[in-house]
Amino acid sequence: MKTKERTIEEKICPLEFAVNAISGKWKIPIVWRINEGEKRPSEMLRGITKVDRRVLNQQLNELVADGILIKESFNELPPRVEYSLTPLGKKLIDVLWKLNDWGNLLLETKKI
Amino acid sequence: MKTKERTIEEKICPLEFAVNAISGKWKIPIVWRINEGEKRPSEMLRGITKVDRRVLNQQLNELVADGILIKESFNELPPRVEYSLTPLGKKLIDVLWKLNDWGNLLLETKKI
Repeated sequence: MKTKERTIEEKICPLEFAVNAISGKWKIPIVWRINEGEKRPSEMLRGITKVDRRVLNQQLNELVADGILIKESFNELPPRVEYSLTPLGKKLIDVLWKLNDWGNLLLETKKI
Repeated sequence: MKTKERTIEEKICPLEFAVNAISGKWKIPIVWRINEGEKRPSEMLRGITKVDRRVLNQQLNELVADGILIKESFNELPPRVEYSLTPLGKKLIDVLWKLNDWGNLLLETKKI
């Protein structure tokens, strides 16, 4: 991960940097679901059926490290953890909507 | 419950579809370069230093199959092949610019 980041920084192509930040297997579904109000990992595990807890946590940690998500831990019993979007994360959602619109066009051409 | 899970998995999400179409290793650089006027595979090979000819051709073929690129073969000696963006491909470029802008924001937060 460290080496990967270093290579990108040497090139400094914002597009490549962006793609790398969101290209982890479940990152887009995670960000999308958090935007739809799913704050807790347990909710995400129910929604994204194919992901396991360990992978989910890893992806969540990377998204926090990239400044896309904020993690809040509540000192309760049982302990509660919630994730939410940072302003940068919210701007990513806007871009993902554009990509979603383009995906609709792509689906239309596939149907022809 | 089983039925519900199945419907979620089977549901065609345009965003997921879009991400899958552009997530091949060199697809974004390829589309980007074609937009900048590089039409011939030999030009792309010079620009994207790490890609080999076989992989480049495979990615180009997939982009053609997805309706993002058009391939034109000229019956010359030596034979000439050129790629260009379809209207769908040009719309993808617009989305990639948005992602590029977001990548700039991401780079800024990384520098702090």
